[in-house]
Amino acid sequence: MDSLPAAGATPLPGPGTPSAGKPPEVNALDNGPSAAESLQNETPGRKPVRRETAESLATKQREISVSEFFTKNRHLLGFDNPQKALLTAIKEAVDNSLDACEEAGILPVLKVDIDQLGEERFRIAVQDNGPGIVKSQIPKIFGKLLYGSKFHVLKQARGQQGIGISAAGMYGLLTTGKSIAVTSRTGPGKPAHYYEIQIDTRKNAPQIIADTVVEWEPPHGTRVEIELVGTYKRGRHSVDDYIRQTAIANPHGEIFYNFPGGAGTLHFPRASDTLPPEPRAIKPHPYGVELGVLIRMLKETSARRLDLTLKRDFSRVSDRVAEEICAAANLRPSSNPHQIAAQEAERLYKAINSVKVMSPPTNCLSPIGEEQILSGMKKEIPAAFFTAVSRSPAVYRGNPFLVEVGMAYGGDLPADDLVDLLRFANRVPLQYQQSGCAITKSVLSIDWRSYGLSQSKGALPTGPLMLFVHIASVWVPFTSESKEAIAAYPEITRELRLALQDCGRRLSSHIRARRREVEEEKKRSYIERYIPHIGIALREILGMSKTAEQELVVTLKDVLERSRSRE
Amino acid sequence: MDSLPAAGATPLPGPGTPSAGKPPEVNALDNGPSAAESLQNETPGRKPVRRETAESLATKQREISVSEFFTKNRHLLGFDNPQKALLTAIKEAVDNSLDACEEAGILPVLKVDIDQLGEERFRIAVQDNGPGIVKSQIPKIFGKLLYGSKFHVLKQARGQQGIGISAAGMYGLLTTGKSIAVTSRTGPGKPAHYYEIQIDTRKNAPQIIADTVVEWEPPHGTRVEIELVGTYKRGRHSVDDYIRQTAIANPHGEIFYNFPGGAGTLHFPRASDTLPPEPRAIKPHPYGVELGVLIRMLKETSARRLDLTLKRDFSRVSDRVAEEICAAANLRPSSNPHQIAAQEAERLYKAINSVKVMSPPTNCLSPIGEEQILSGMKKEIPAAFFTAVSRSPAVYRGNPFLVEVGMAYGGDLPADDLVDLLRFANRVPLQYQQSGCAITKSVLSIDWRSYGLSQSKGALPTGPLMLFVHIASVWVPFTSESKEAIAAYPEITRELRLALQDCGRRLSSHIRARRREVEEEKKRSYIERYIPHIGIALREILGMSKTAEQELVVTLKDVLERSRSRE
Repeated sequence: MDSLPAAGATPLPGPGTPSAGKPPEVNALDNGPSAAESLQNETPGRKPVRRETAESLATKQREISVSEFFTKNRHLLGFDNPQKALLTAIKEAVDNSLDACEEAGILPVLKVDIDQLGEERFRIAVQDNGPGIVKSQIPKIFGKLLYGSKFHVLKQARGQQGIGISAAGMYGLLTTGKSIAVTSRTGPGKPAHYYEIQIDTRKNAPQIIADTVVEWEPPHGTRVEIELVGTYKRGRHSVDDYIRQTAIANPHGEIFYNFPGGAGTLHFPRASDTLPPEPRAIKPHPYGVELGVLIRMLKETSARRLDLTLKRDFSRVSDRVAEEICAAANLRPSSNPHQIAAQEAERLYKAINSVKVMSPPTNCLSPIGEEQILSGMKKEIPAAFFTAVSRSPAVYRGNPFLVEVGMAYGGDLPADDLVDLLRFANRVPLQYQQSGCAITKSVLSIDWRSYGLSQSKGALPTGPLMLFVHIASVWVPFTSESKEAIAAYPEITRELRLALQDCGRRLSSHIRARRREVEEEKKRSYIERYIPHIGIALREILGMSKTAEQELVVTLKDVLERSRSRE
Repeated sequence: MDSLPAAGATPLPGPGTPSAGKPPEVNALDNGPSAAESLQNETPGRKPVRRETAESLATKQREISVSEFFTKNRHLLGFDNPQKALLTAIKEAVDNSLDACEEAGILPVLKVDIDQLGEERFRIAVQDNGPGIVKSQIPKIFGKLLYGSKFHVLKQARGQQGIGISAAGMYGLLTTGKSIAVTSRTGPGKPAHYYEIQIDTRKNAPQIIADTVVEWEPPHGTRVEIELVGTYKRGRHSVDDYIRQTAIANPHGEIFYNFPGGAGTLHFPRASDTLPPEPRAIKPHPYGVELGVLIRMLKETSARRLDLTLKRDFSRVSDRVAEEICAAANLRPSSNPHQIAAQEAERLYKAINSVKVMSPPTNCLSPIGEEQILSGMKKEIPAAFFTAVSRSPAVYRGNPFLVEVGMAYGGDLPADDLVDLLRFANRVPLQYQQSGCAITKSVLSIDWRSYGLSQSKGALPTGPLMLFVHIASVWVPFTSESKEAIAAYPEITRELRLALQDCGRRLSSHIRARRREVEEEKKRSYIERYIPHIGIALREILGMSKTAEQELVVTLKDVLERSRSRE
């Protein structure tokens, strides 16, 4: 479009002074009389049947509840079609279970059941050995969108939005009319509570259908059951795939998985008895705070002095940094933050971004770690060569994040297929929207031929390789609420490329070494084959004894091996 | 992943009976003692510092306001980066202005100003001659997300979610700390109200900063001003592009556009004085209603008999159809809808989908129309050949929609570039996420070489062609809240392909005719060139007179022309 001349758009003779900055009492259409005339120009010769007025339009304005919004737009949450809906519902429940176990310091044991009730009808159940949920919280957690413990905290977690599990329940209700059922116990000796909940979409509030105490064996934990319209398929994008990848990325977890038509329970045992380090919540880093947020923070802070606000409400602001920021903003450190005017706040905002502040603390992150990635992959992937890289944390928009890459190569992996790319965010496997994801874009941006793989232009490389890529962050920038792909922030892409290249170089050494070995084999077999003949020839020419010949052969082999190994 | 053996996942010996359907008092982990043991297996030898309990977790649960959610996830609304933010803010304001004008039966006159205040700081203003907004509604419309008149109505409109303009104001506030400013008058003699509004994101509610009556010349209309961080660029994805495309798809609208650094106002005059037909609101079609929604409708209906509910609350349900549905569901037509049990509702749901119901009415749609598409394109695009197709309405998930395609070919359009694809939904140009859009996918799925264009595999065709594709629907299934791409429902893709193929055939005839003309020219020039020589040769051989030679040349030309035209 940019190459087109604006055939119909003719500049007006007026000076074109923008009027936007002027006070509104000036007639804004000051570009000549034609515009002003047109403003009053109603539809000519059209009968005004049923046309709206400002008053009639006003009566139609209504509040839309967030549940109504997401019911109509359920594809935004990953409930576009029955196959994806089944996966999404399970994923949301599993995410919550793993988060809860880890927060409570419990090695997770999960049980995932899919029970087929009809052609497109399923009942799923996800049960964990987590800390359980306090009775009063159960209805809201499962029957209200945008309710949760993780949204307002800067700390790595699988869930972040407070939408997932209640949306899964809402989808179940929408497609089957059935409640979400929750059983939970917070400890031995405590009662197990059983709830059936339906979301009231008009109010975005839980409706309690059943609320009883039940007999339940597990000493603590939560079980969630949802009946829904879905499709169970194996292969790509399947629940099976998702469960296996979850096991790889969470080697400290144990999963029992019952799928429809299966002969029994699939058991994914634990590969490690070490819980991941518990991530800590951090305060926002000054570089990531936007002007509007800064203004609100100043208004709401409990500190009475500007310098104290900066030090208390942000991470990495020392006495010296606070002083420097105040100086750069030309504001007294003792000013009352509640009385900072808009213009002063803007100076402060600029000052913050002009002063050098240490990178945010990274104990808010909980990487999987190279060792755990390797053990997770070795457990599930029949390859010959494994390597992994866990990068140091970096920062985008003030949010700490880190990238980890694992590679499995050779062995029984198919040699002629495109590389298998497993994507993870905060240990959760990502199944859809592969091409829109920063991880895929980074893999595609690398020339894999230089690492010994073949690759067509614009495509993933080909070879017996499985790539495991993990991004951990206090706030993963997903491209949609359904959390299927990661936005390509330049800082994230950069870290991804560095980690991939690092692993790529190791892979390349392995492939080269493997090739050398093969060459070696070949040369060795030449020597083995021809040296005896040379021996015989020399014996005949020189009239050597059989013993001398054998000695000669051994010496020759030895010399050749040694000279070869010096190559 | 699907090709991989589940190296670590070993089926348990148990029968694997899914326990999900059983009541929760049964111990759910009934797959052998190992699982039950594991459930009680806490982290061994790890000191329990700062670990959470159900009680400590409960204290952290909080409600998240939809404004907080979208502030943190503002990329979901199209505010990912400064360039896109500028476009999105203008687009939301223009969408609202055009909707309001059309609803009130007013030929739209819009004024769009972009005023650059600093390197990345702009003040935008969009003013219309619409019906204005009633005073009491202004704060909520501009200071609250999920508030609007269009969400609950099945009728074609540009806006549908009640998020856009308040999100633009929220973004402005976030990046500059400045209020959104609104001036509106509902008619001559009425006061013009001026508001400055800031959204309180914690509450998702408007905060009124200024509320006054001002002098304002226009007799009616609304003016919205937002100060924001943005980037103004020309070319692809630019506001210029968007404004020009808006003019093409809305030939009944007039736009005055002031861009930064421009020499004056760009004027896009009206190409047609006919307002589009006013779309009517329709009731939901029975085929598009999901079980959960059906249950709620039965509960909330004002009708006292089931057959009346069906006839009143749905479109296209006649006496006969209502009777058939009740019979198929084995329910009495006189049953009280408020007393229909869940199982009966499910029977009803199945019955609805087994009975033949007429397609939904289509006066809820307002197509641009072939004539208007052509006049819009001819006004703005310097091409030689134009054609357009407006398809009859079709239905996806119970929602009526229709597809329109326009083509401009040849002339001054660049011949060696990829085809220029303009996408529109409810007359709104779509600028981003081209590859994820059903329109693009449909264009790519067609073999354009059979219509005389060149095309590489998997790419858009190449040639001097501009494609204009419009989808109109009561509910456009966008792939994200930012409304940048359309989800590829099979019914939609089918209609798109049919319309594209129809235009493609016409294009192909034109291209073939054009080629024939060129051939003709060539042949004609051969005749013109060689016949005189033949005349001279014949005169010399036959000893003809100069006059006889000239007569012969004319006769020969005539014969050849005639024989050629019979070819």
